[in-house]
Amino acid sequence: MPLGQVYQLLEPGPVVLLTTAAHGRANVMTMSWHMMVDFTPPLVACVVSSADHSFAALRATRECVIALPAVALAKKVVAIGNCSGRDVDKFATIGLTPLPALHVAAPLVGECFANLECKVVETRLVNRYNLFVLEVVKAWGDPAQEHPKTIHHKGFGHFVVDGRAITLASKMP
Amino acid sequence: MPLGQVYQLLEPGPVVLLTTAAHGRANVMTMSWHMMVDFTPPLVACVVSSADHSFAALRATRECVIALPAVALAKKVVAIGNCSGRDVDKFATIGLTPLPALHVAAPLVGECFANLECKVVETRLVNRYNLFVLEVVKAWGDPAQEHPKTIHHKGFGHFVVDGRAITLASKMP
Repeated sequence: MPLGQVYQLLEPGPVVLLTTAAHGRANVMTMSWHMMVDFTPPLVACVVSSADHSFAALRATRECVIALPAVALAKKVVAIGNCSGRDVDKFATIGLTPLPALHVAAPLVGECFANLECKVVETRLVNRYNLFVLEVVKAWGDPAQEHPKTIHHKGFGHFVVDGRAITLASKMP
Repeated sequence: MPLGQVYQLLEPGPVVLLTTAAHGRANVMTMSWHMMVDFTPPLVACVVSSADHSFAALRATRECVIALPAVALAKKVVAIGNCSGRDVDKFATIGLTPLPALHVAAPLVGECFANLECKVVETRLVNRYNLFVLEVVKAWGDPAQEHPKTIHHKGFGHFVVDGRAITLASKMP
């Protein structure tokens, strides 16, 4: 997938998965606190709580994958958020397929409709806000998943699913 | 509206409006590049391009309002994005009602279902990324707009509207 189209995936605010790998062990968490920062190369900011097991791996390895699940994966997405990589191998327990990435040690998620390989490029706001800026270095799309509907978290397990599409004449990219 | 509930508005990734006021002149822009950074007090990161007329006002006054439009305002939201405050008074031209805020000079938007008064609290990433961190100091909800459906931008005027709601047993706030 062209890197210049990555913002079209993240800008609408879907719940995503974030995978890391440290000491030969892969982990995955759910994340809704992310935003685009620039178009090309695509830069993405995200907040990963220092209470999350993924935080240390992300900070130490400076690599991750952002994977985009469609609504069919909603139950697994919530299951990922309900346990910690400290205690379990989430890929095995929840039933997700880790696939090798090209530029990072963190795995792609086979069931997701898009996977974005990312490198950490900015850490000045990590200590105070747990805020990382990532550069997407490779983007994968699953051609078998056309027009996927994403989910958006509204708190405490309430989600809204993508509904109807509308198009208006806009000058904005 | 309780400040602790603000994240439930922004976490799902809606298109929002951002108002500023500088030199006695109010302006408004559309924005999709925002994310939550903390729950309480609510901290919000956003990217406002230095090419946007609002950038200078936000940086100089360190104040703004984030206003949340429902889908009924979609045409006006796009119209806001299609012109610049350099050239026109967008409130008058597009037909939006500026209302006085309590803690900031930037106006609330009367037609929106929620309005968040914000102060800039972090500027270290402004020069490099146009990335501001805001603290929400006051949140307003319009009780007349129940269950508003928001819109999410997918690029070039394509939007997806909130669809069905689903609830899953989650341990996450």
